[in-house]
Amino acid sequence: MTQTLGKLAAEVGAVLQNADPDCEITGVATLQHAGKGEISFLANAAYRKYLKDTRAAAVILSPEDAAGYPAAALVSSNPYSSYARIASLISPPAAARQGVHPSACLDTDCQVAATAWIGPHCIVEKGAVIHDGVQLAGGCFIGANSNIGADCRLSANVVICHGVTIGERVKIAPGAVIGSDGFGLANDGGQWLNVPQLGSVRIGNDVDIGSNTTIDRGALEDTVLEDGVKLDNQIQVAHNVRIGAHTAIAGCVGISGSAVIGKHCLIGGGSGIVGHLEIADHVIITGMTMVTKSISKPGVYSSGVPAQENDAWNRNYARLRKLDTLARKVLSLERAHAAAKRRGNK
Amino acid sequence: MTQTLGKLAAEVGAVLQNADPDCEITGVATLQHAGKGEISFLANAAYRKYLKDTRAAAVILSPEDAAGYPAAALVSSNPYSSYARIASLISPPAAARQGVHPSACLDTDCQVAATAWIGPHCIVEKGAVIHDGVQLAGGCFIGANSNIGADCRLSANVVICHGVTIGERVKIAPGAVIGSDGFGLANDGGQWLNVPQLGSVRIGNDVDIGSNTTIDRGALEDTVLEDGVKLDNQIQVAHNVRIGAHTAIAGCVGISGSAVIGKHCLIGGGSGIVGHLEIADHVIITGMTMVTKSISKPGVYSSGVPAQENDAWNRNYARLRKLDTLARKVLSLERAHAAAKRRGNK
Amino acid sequence: MTQTLGKLAAEVGAVLQNADPDCEITGVATLQHAGKGEISFLANAAYRKYLKDTRAAAVILSPEDAAGYPAAALVSSNPYSSYARIASLISPPAAARQGVHPSACLDTDCQVAATAWIGPHCIVEKGAVIHDGVQLAGGCFIGANSNIGADCRLSANVVICHGVTIGERVKIAPGAVIGSDGFGLANDGGQWLNVPQLGSVRIGNDVDIGSNTTIDRGALEDTVLEDGVKLDNQIQVAHNVRIGAHTAIAGCVGISGSAVIGKHCLIGGGSGIVGHLEIADHVIITGMTMVTKSISKPGVYSSGVPAQENDAWNRNYARLRKLDTLARKVLSLERAHAAAKRRGNK
Repeated sequence: MTQTLGKLAAEVGAVLQNADPDCEITGVATLQHAGKGEISFLANAAYRKYLKDTRAAAVILSPEDAAGYPAAALVSSNPYSSYARIASLISPPAAARQGVHPSACLDTDCQVAATAWIGPHCIVEKGAVIHDGVQLAGGCFIGANSNIGADCRLSANVVICHGVTIGERVKIAPGAVIGSDGFGLANDGGQWLNVPQLGSVRIGNDVDIGSNTTIDRGALEDTVLEDGVKLDNQIQVAHNVRIGAHTAIAGCVGISGSAVIGKHCLIGGGSGIVGHLEIADHVIITGMTMVTKSISKPGVYSSGVPAQENDAWNRNYARLRKLDTLARKVLSLERAHAAAKRRGNK
Repeated sequence: MTQTLGKLAAEVGAVLQNADPDCEITGVATLQHAGKGEISFLANAAYRKYLKDTRAAAVILSPEDAAGYPAAALVSSNPYSSYARIASLISPPAAARQGVHPSACLDTDCQVAATAWIGPHCIVEKGAVIHDGVQLAGGCFIGANSNIGADCRLSANVVICHGVTIGERVKIAPGAVIGSDGFGLANDGGQWLNVPQLGSVRIGNDVDIGSNTTIDRGALEDTVLEDGVKLDNQIQVAHNVRIGAHTAIAGCVGISGSAVIGKHCLIGGGSGIVGHLEIADHVIITGMTMVTKSISKPGVYSSGVPAQENDAWNRNYARLRKLDTLARKVLSLERAHAAAKRRGNK
Repeated sequence: MTQTLGKLAAEVGAVLQNADPDCEITGVATLQHAGKGEISFLANAAYRKYLKDTRAAAVILSPEDAAGYPAAALVSSNPYSSYARIASLISPPAAARQGVHPSACLDTDCQVAATAWIGPHCIVEKGAVIHDGVQLAGGCFIGANSNIGADCRLSANVVICHGVTIGERVKIAPGAVIGSDGFGLANDGGQWLNVPQLGSVRIGNDVDIGSNTTIDRGALEDTVLEDGVKLDNQIQVAHNVRIGAHTAIAGCVGISGSAVIGKHCLIGGGSGIVGHLEIADHVIITGMTMVTKSISKPGVYSSGVPAQENDAWNRNYARLRKLDTLARKVLSLERAHAAAKRRGNK
């Protein structure tokens, strides 16, 4: 959708510099590949080297980067969020559809708003409520008595189990599963009894859930994702987990049962969170870290082990297997040294 | 489903203490949140603090916790399994349905028991056999010549590939995929040839399979899950793996090809098992552990690295990269110390 | 499909030894279990012990293993690839079907080749192009303007989002999701803005994609998988990743955004690759390794920590948490030792 630079700057509160407000913008692109009519941005210092040769019609820049920049710029205190807004204006999401595809199977007892779209081969069970503007792409399953808030967008083949409550404007990627039974087992003489999972899942507003991510229903009470939580792909959220507002979690993270994660946290990809612990607000967990204890202070926490050449790693790892013995040797040497020193001082 | 305390105690072999056998129980709840008509339980010492203030109509307790407990209790040698049975009685799973939804696509050559339910948009291919009481929620794919045992419950969008055999009372969560081709590749001059995957998958009775878990078919022989195996979500089971009876595996575990896992094992979330090895019965693997060699003795095995504050971890990790050098220095100091001692003793 | 030994040997360029070229082969099997009419192979030294007792009609062997072997053999310089070809000849994949199942929903504006098969409950959106011989098993979603190359085989419930381009002979396992939005977020005063994901995914020829694997579309440019890439199950490929030709990646690997992986690499299961780095051609990453920096030289790289008995690991890990302190102690001892030596030499 073509927009003028002046309109875009006004929409995001940016200031034009060396720029014609009537210049028409038809697309967004990287600094390296932008051409006529395209706007670009600089939000990562690694890409600053491309700035001087860019052919972008204008570049969204921080005040620091804009100082002395001789070509057209939109100056913003947060170039990346300004870019996100501008890209949304120029390339808006597909227009919402309305109606029910004839191949969809709706229980006679469900409620579907007239402004919602139920795509091909969707299933909506008894008692489910689909609010205004909801978009179900196709092949989605909406279980009995679940409630899908206004303007949610579910991509293809999403499964929402029975009794799940989802807020407004929640975006769910293909293959995600919300509300299946938690992994609750009681050992009964060496065999496992399934513990009925009687809670559900409650999801706030403006949450994103990635492809093939799974969120289990609670055992007795609910699994909860607060407003603005962002989950990447292939994340596993176990029963009775609570994730605080505006926390973002990267792909392949596993969160065990009853873990409570604070607000505004960042959790790196491949990390694992043990169950029944609490993580404070504003905690950052770097990639492939295992969190085994509660974290009560904001800060950055890690345990991922970066790669080495295999030969070196094998030698180091062989020592790690006996690190306690090594530490005892050092202690013994320290004692011997101290004793020798005492003798020398006599 | 309302039940009396007396009936519940009798069903699970528990003994009433300070309790009216005619008291009606309508639900289950946590100690903290139970109210009138609700039964609760204490199975984890961390929750004992809630016992004295609970408003539960009765609490399922071990003999130790029941001793001196002044309110209504069901005394059981295994409170958690008693709770699981009682919760199943009070909140039984949704009643089984029967019939074939008109939107389902059944090959003319498949067999579906009259007491089974084939939900909307399911596909049942040629030669597949669906036994009594099986429940397919919706959007399931049952491949050619597969065999689904009595009373299995498949949630939405489950995929069973061709020729897979599944026992009775198996519960499969949404998005699970059973029997797709194993990752068999032969290198042929730098390019990869697919090795036909001609085995299948055989699953015993009373197995549970979590959401988006994947189990590959064998290369020549079958991938096998024995009776009572419990798999959480997002687990990857490669071709020709065998998992022994009553082994429980937490989420996000990956098991490489031809690994043989014993009976009654517990495998923690995020762990990885290398292929072509054997793990004995009654082995416990803690979370995020990598098993690279066979384990022949029952016991607990680990290699997960718990998180630290990032600064401390970075300093420690920098030393780990050179741990072999550090160990050599210690050895050298030990030798020097021994030599000095010998000189001193002369 | 029955074949003679002579025909099979000719097809794969193997040489018969002690073998009747007219012997009819009806199947393939392991050395241990092969019987009359079945051909086997030896490609892994661990199985050599089964060679002398095998009842296989013939065995595919390397020249070294064939030397002195008294029974029927097909001698090949690459027994495993010869086996793969022979198994494909004896057990060819299911024959391709043609047509459109009446339950499939095709937009009036899509193009489907007459020789393609669109299975039950598939959805093909506006502008999508399905080329000759493509097989969609059932429940697949093909998004608007996507392009599926000739002879691709998509298993059940595969999701291809809008605008994705897939080459020829690509094999996609059930539940895989290609082209959903990358995890692009801009922080805006503590809340997250979604950054529109305007790139797409381009996949070359002869690529395999495993069950429930997810590949995100690019933010501005495309996510790219070159020819012959082989991905196992449950892999996460983030936006703008590029994977070089003939690279094979095992299950449960996570690859962060904008990582560039070379050609002919092997990446072990459960590994994690940090974003915005480059990995050279012919790099091998062993299982559960975390790659945090670019790798510019071919070779083997590792950081996975193998399991120990839990007690030993706990002791070692407790030392690892203080490894920097230990290293400082060793340094201090070395200094003290050197000083003592200097004094002793005076």
